[in-house]
Amino acid sequence: MILAINAGSSSIKFSLFNSENLEVLAGGLIERIGLPGTFFSFQNNIRNCSLGNNVDISDTFEAISYISNILTGNEYGVVSSVGEISAIGHRVVHGGESISRPVIISSEIKEIIRENIDLAPLHNPPNLKGIEACEKYFPEVPQVAVFDTAFHSSIPDYAYIYALPYRMYSEYSVRRYGFHGISQKYVLEESAQYLNIKKSEYNCIICHLGSGCSITAVAGGCSVDTSMGLTPLEGLVMGTRSGDIDPAVILYLLTRKDYDINEVSNILNKKSGLYGISGIGSSDIRDILQARDHGSYQAELAIKSFTYRVKKYICSYMGVLERVDSIVFTGGIGENSHEIRYKACQNLEKFGVVIDQNKNQHLQGIEIQSDSSEVKILVVPTNEEKEIARQVLSTVERKNR
Amino acid sequence: MILAINAGSSSIKFSLFNSENLEVLAGGLIERIGLPGTFFSFQNNIRNCSLGNNVDISDTFEAISYISNILTGNEYGVVSSVGEISAIGHRVVHGGESISRPVIISSEIKEIIRENIDLAPLHNPPNLKGIEACEKYFPEVPQVAVFDTAFHSSIPDYAYIYALPYRMYSEYSVRRYGFHGISQKYVLEESAQYLNIKKSEYNCIICHLGSGCSITAVAGGCSVDTSMGLTPLEGLVMGTRSGDIDPAVILYLLTRKDYDINEVSNILNKKSGLYGISGIGSSDIRDILQARDHGSYQAELAIKSFTYRVKKYICSYMGVLERVDSIVFTGGIGENSHEIRYKACQNLEKFGVVIDQNKNQHLQGIEIQSDSSEVKILVVPTNEEKEIARQVLSTVERKNR
Repeated sequence: MILAINAGSSSIKFSLFNSENLEVLAGGLIERIGLPGTFFSFQNNIRNCSLGNNVDISDTFEAISYISNILTGNEYGVVSSVGEISAIGHRVVHGGESISRPVIISSEIKEIIRENIDLAPLHNPPNLKGIEACEKYFPEVPQVAVFDTAFHSSIPDYAYIYALPYRMYSEYSVRRYGFHGISQKYVLEESAQYLNIKKSEYNCIICHLGSGCSITAVAGGCSVDTSMGLTPLEGLVMGTRSGDIDPAVILYLLTRKDYDINEVSNILNKKSGLYGISGIGSSDIRDILQARDHGSYQAELAIKSFTYRVKKYICSYMGVLERVDSIVFTGGIGENSHEIRYKACQNLEKFGVVIDQNKNQHLQGIEIQSDSSEVKILVVPTNEEKEIARQVLSTVERKNR
Repeated sequence: MILAINAGSSSIKFSLFNSENLEVLAGGLIERIGLPGTFFSFQNNIRNCSLGNNVDISDTFEAISYISNILTGNEYGVVSSVGEISAIGHRVVHGGESISRPVIISSEIKEIIRENIDLAPLHNPPNLKGIEACEKYFPEVPQVAVFDTAFHSSIPDYAYIYALPYRMYSEYSVRRYGFHGISQKYVLEESAQYLNIKKSEYNCIICHLGSGCSITAVAGGCSVDTSMGLTPLEGLVMGTRSGDIDPAVILYLLTRKDYDINEVSNILNKKSGLYGISGIGSSDIRDILQARDHGSYQAELAIKSFTYRVKKYICSYMGVLERVDSIVFTGGIGENSHEIRYKACQNLEKFGVVIDQNKNQHLQGIEIQSDSSEVKILVVPTNEEKEIARQVLSTVERKNR
């Protein structure tokens, strides 16, 4: 059995997989850790039982202890002891430059995660706490770190370098890293398999559109460019994040409008994107589409601007890829909003991209391009936990060879 | 006769045109105004004489007075009194949202230029001083302001809005404005005329690559998107400007690396771009190409990164334009570096863009695409002063109708 753990700043998601077929045996979520109303939900697929209730959990260590107890408990448990779990995989957001694949966790690896805290101050610390807590409550179970940045380690230098003084890169490691790598790798594997194209020959553009959004150009199964950068702020319009702006906007707000750095950071990360343009008090695309239907100009502007930017990125990646086999939509918006998919692909017939509005609206299977389209257009639900488990398996196997 | 004036912070460029055929009668440049070694150069094409010498000029008013004296003087003069000049055109960088065409200067227009100083603190103040000085030294000559932003006033809302809280736009006027408009309009007119396409039916992509670089998508003769934004910092890699970066890079340098705002602004505007990546102490593409030829990895990276970004923008604009008649290169690099043009267009056969390397290297005329290319690729030298004079003429004529 493989346990996949995604430990965020105030929530922990976990799934237990059968190692043979990656079937989900059990899984759950602890939300609002350390906040009022901490909530635990759990589903055991073997015994077909579930639970959901308020719990008293104030930090990551208590949360992992709680998960360990549930998994081994009499009432809802799956295993009789934690030793039955053959490996634990942890999502870690930022592995910096030195990490290009999943790795067995050691003190050196924890040090690398620590070194990259500056680049992912909101994510790496809770990721690390999750690892340390598992070392305590799942002793002797091998642990593997699966990095969100690793998938993008194949991006060539001219695409990852920013046009800054070179020492910003050589001394401070300022460069494009890219994120959503676990999700995008999953979608890449699934779509290559579905299309029956050898991964090493597969070129595609993956649009991960969720509350965070990013888009990746894949050549020969490897990421060669992506829209997120040093941090997950760059690129597409997102739920509450600005994506690309003139960098001078920040300088303007700081020097001419008397904002302080924290306010600007908060605006760009939490008050911008669909939320910011639409002004409707929600970053949920469903709410924004509804507001648009009720006549909100700003909601309409948010949607147009969101899809326009997706389309521009698709086209720029179509240009730099030699050939494109497929455009793949995933993530909450990518999987569920036919309107967004349609608008992102509209008027791209000249590039051999033709969406079939009927297939797109009434998803059956995963293909939504018309018969005349040279490029496949696919909708593939993502599954980060399953990808973590997959990568854990291959890492443990690699180690055992 | 029309006098075109481009008054910058430490230099003033001027050209006197025949109103009938826009032939240059005389022109010159004052450099290093207010700095040691102020230099004046001048060419009178009628009397076929020129001069160049150090002068004692400490501000814009003295500079304009000097120009007025030269133009009316016995030795090098063109006119017997300033009254023979029928209008003066001034390049003004930022007209904000309210300006969409050249306008006769009035106190209201000067107020608009003043209101936009916050958005162009380095440019609008000297532009305004040039106007005020001409009011003094060329009294009663009608004056026209020609705005760099005006050409881009046709960009639709979804392309000019940033994904920021909407009040950043409604209250602070933070949006994409775009620059290089005078140059790009010139190149648009010239290329439409050359191709014999009606401007209202002409779609093209204009790459203005100089020390500043920007790229514009033109549909039906109007700008519909451009790479520069609130300021001329956004977009392509430039001589010393970064262009697009993750906005979080700024926050990272301010909060984690103890830079102050002025240092960051100075880095992004003056130490980045080709200069920053290459690290060779020059922002001149010729020096960088030479350093690459001598084996500099960073110089090669600077060139690759520069051309890669141009190509990505070309492709994204090809995607959003319904059809593209031409890609037009202009500006110091665009007009003179065949290697940069080649790399920006390389491997775009799939989009109907095929550059002819022989025509590209040995420019004869302005077309450099191969016979099989669906899209024309043109090299058109820009001429901002001539475009200013053109716009002044049409504005004065409009007024007199």
